[in-house]
Amino acid sequence: MELYERTPPIPPEEYVRIDAEKLKEYVCKVIEAFNVPEHDARIVADVLVTADLFGIESHGVQRLGRYVRGLKSGSIKAKPQIKVVRDSPACALIDGDSGLGQVVCMKAVQIAIEKAEKCGVGVVGVRNSNHFGIAGYYALKISSRKMIGIVLTNSRPLACYTHTIGRNIGTNPIAISIPTKEPPPYLFDAATSVVPIGKIEVLVKEGRKAPLGWGVDEHGELTEDPKIILERGAVLPLGGLGEVLGGHKGSGLSISIDILCGVLTGANWGLNVGLAVEGRRANVGHFIVAINIESFMEFDQFTDRMEEFRSYIKSLPKHPKAERIWIPGEKAWLTMQTRLKIGIPIHKAIIEELKAIGSEVGLEFELEKMKK
Amino acid sequence: MELYERTPPIPPEEYVRIDAEKLKEYVCKVIEAFNVPEHDARIVADVLVTADLFGIESHGVQRLGRYVRGLKSGSIKAKPQIKVVRDSPACALIDGDSGLGQVVCMKAVQIAIEKAEKCGVGVVGVRNSNHFGIAGYYALKISSRKMIGIVLTNSRPLACYTHTIGRNIGTNPIAISIPTKEPPPYLFDAATSVVPIGKIEVLVKEGRKAPLGWGVDEHGELTEDPKIILERGAVLPLGGLGEVLGGHKGSGLSISIDILCGVLTGANWGLNVGLAVEGRRANVGHFIVAINIESFMEFDQFTDRMEEFRSYIKSLPKHPKAERIWIPGEKAWLTMQTRLKIGIPIHKAIIEELKAIGSEVGLEFELEKMKK
Repeated sequence: MELYERTPPIPPEEYVRIDAEKLKEYVCKVIEAFNVPEHDARIVADVLVTADLFGIESHGVQRLGRYVRGLKSGSIKAKPQIKVVRDSPACALIDGDSGLGQVVCMKAVQIAIEKAEKCGVGVVGVRNSNHFGIAGYYALKISSRKMIGIVLTNSRPLACYTHTIGRNIGTNPIAISIPTKEPPPYLFDAATSVVPIGKIEVLVKEGRKAPLGWGVDEHGELTEDPKIILERGAVLPLGGLGEVLGGHKGSGLSISIDILCGVLTGANWGLNVGLAVEGRRANVGHFIVAINIESFMEFDQFTDRMEEFRSYIKSLPKHPKAERIWIPGEKAWLTMQTRLKIGIPIHKAIIEELKAIGSEVGLEFELEKMKK
Repeated sequence: MELYERTPPIPPEEYVRIDAEKLKEYVCKVIEAFNVPEHDARIVADVLVTADLFGIESHGVQRLGRYVRGLKSGSIKAKPQIKVVRDSPACALIDGDSGLGQVVCMKAVQIAIEKAEKCGVGVVGVRNSNHFGIAGYYALKISSRKMIGIVLTNSRPLACYTHTIGRNIGTNPIAISIPTKEPPPYLFDAATSVVPIGKIEVLVKEGRKAPLGWGVDEHGELTEDPKIILERGAVLPLGGLGEVLGGHKGSGLSISIDILCGVLTGANWGLNVGLAVEGRRANVGHFIVAINIESFMEFDQFTDRMEEFRSYIKSLPKHPKAERIWIPGEKAWLTMQTRLKIGIPIHKAIIEELKAIGSEVGLEFELEKMKK
């Protein structure tokens, strides 16, 4: 098997390879220790570790601390009463009662799938939720059921709306997953900003410059200094600064997602989409769509067509400067295969953090036993 | 009233201002002359003239010739048998029988709205259609019915998939329209490429350079020469060349739309999405979603929240180099108000073309009577 990681650990000596299942078990126990039912804790652990397996470390176990802080402060409820507040044959609106975003969203996914089985499509809006990790996780859950999954969420304002200055719109991602005959499943999962904030944080840590076009300073001017972008600037919407290269398109996508996730559901939107750790309800909103493929075409015929489509893209003439032509979802899937085999590289500083979180609740993080 | 046009006629002396209603009537008569029923011809005329009113001339009456050529060659059927080939409570797949894209799509819009009235959401896939003009037209038809309209179509391969060379993916647009208390309605309508091909054509005509980042040459290298982009290169996906500024996101959006419109419906996709004028079926695919707002929230409460959302965006600190902060759909709407008042500027060369098309079927284009 080809060993590929979209984000190889650099330098390798600062990382330890941990077995995915054991890591998941540990994360699950930590969350359970904060009164979260085992079933729910297992969902959160699976979402977090899947992000690490996919090579999206910014959304992986390094976020465990944030969720724990939310649970401790009470801004995230360990045992929420998740309720369907509006219901129609193909749609539902659910109130997450400030539960863990992962738990609330999986409930929404389940309802969307049930509705799509009966009606052909299911659309579920969610309010009173929290940060739910990687949107792609939920889209994949839907596509594993012979459906097309589309998952949107709003998020903290870290990007800058076209022709304005400051941080005022979310990096609001969109994930689309489509079943295929052979793995990997198709998974498009992208922030509507040029880059997610995590990439800026990494540059700051590494003392490197940001490519011109990723972010702006507090006056709305382009800057290569990731520290300025992070501390007093903003990331740019997909398409960049102004309208010349389509920044208004990225901005428009971002606020369209905010309207579906926030305005339509009764969740927060814009500047008000917050972090649970601030001691108040984050009231994040999500929007989930499940489309039953058999409402349009026999499933096997569809997956045959998807294979043809994939071959078409893969056989296009490659750009001379490119290594490879990628299909959305392929990098994450290859990284996962690699890490299931050789372990997930966790930075030593993160390991210390994970240990500290566990020791608070009397859990031992036995590194020796967790190595792959 | 403020007179605003997103695309003012330059130089003005090369244009004549024509009354929108009279222009629509003329276009309708031309199309009727090719055996298209009056009801259908009226739809096509309305879509084309609306594009001109919105300041999207590339999709306006200057395209009449293409539709007429399609009708004459038989690749577009004047009297198609549009059929529902799959049906479930909230979804349908329709076969457009190679009818005019506008007529086929309006049928799909009507079915999507009916399903959304009953189930909360209606999703309609369309195959065997043709180029349907501006996607935003149909999204607006849905939002005028207290619903959120999302309209996708695939289109001719004019853009270049990330890490490849050549024209191999569509500029596949996405339109999202959302009702508001006060006009203009919210309308996001954007190609998933940096720019639509029409903007490159305009630069060639005007002998001007293209901004670096709009397109590539036949080797996949950036070029400022619009003639090279147009004749042997390609436009870039939103996010530009490679992955640094997110070109893979624009590419991923484009092919996701192609999968929904083409792969899922049985329409063509990728290189095979054609022009009807080539004497064969274009087999364009569309994908229409209508979401009933009242499945999530009382309509008045929603539009109140939309007004708050709009005020939020409008009151953000403006970038010092920007003239104004725009909401998606506002430019088109203001241009329409202006042109309904002072007429649509039609270039003299286009007027000659329109005259020639009419004279073929014995229609007189009485310019004098059409001036505003």
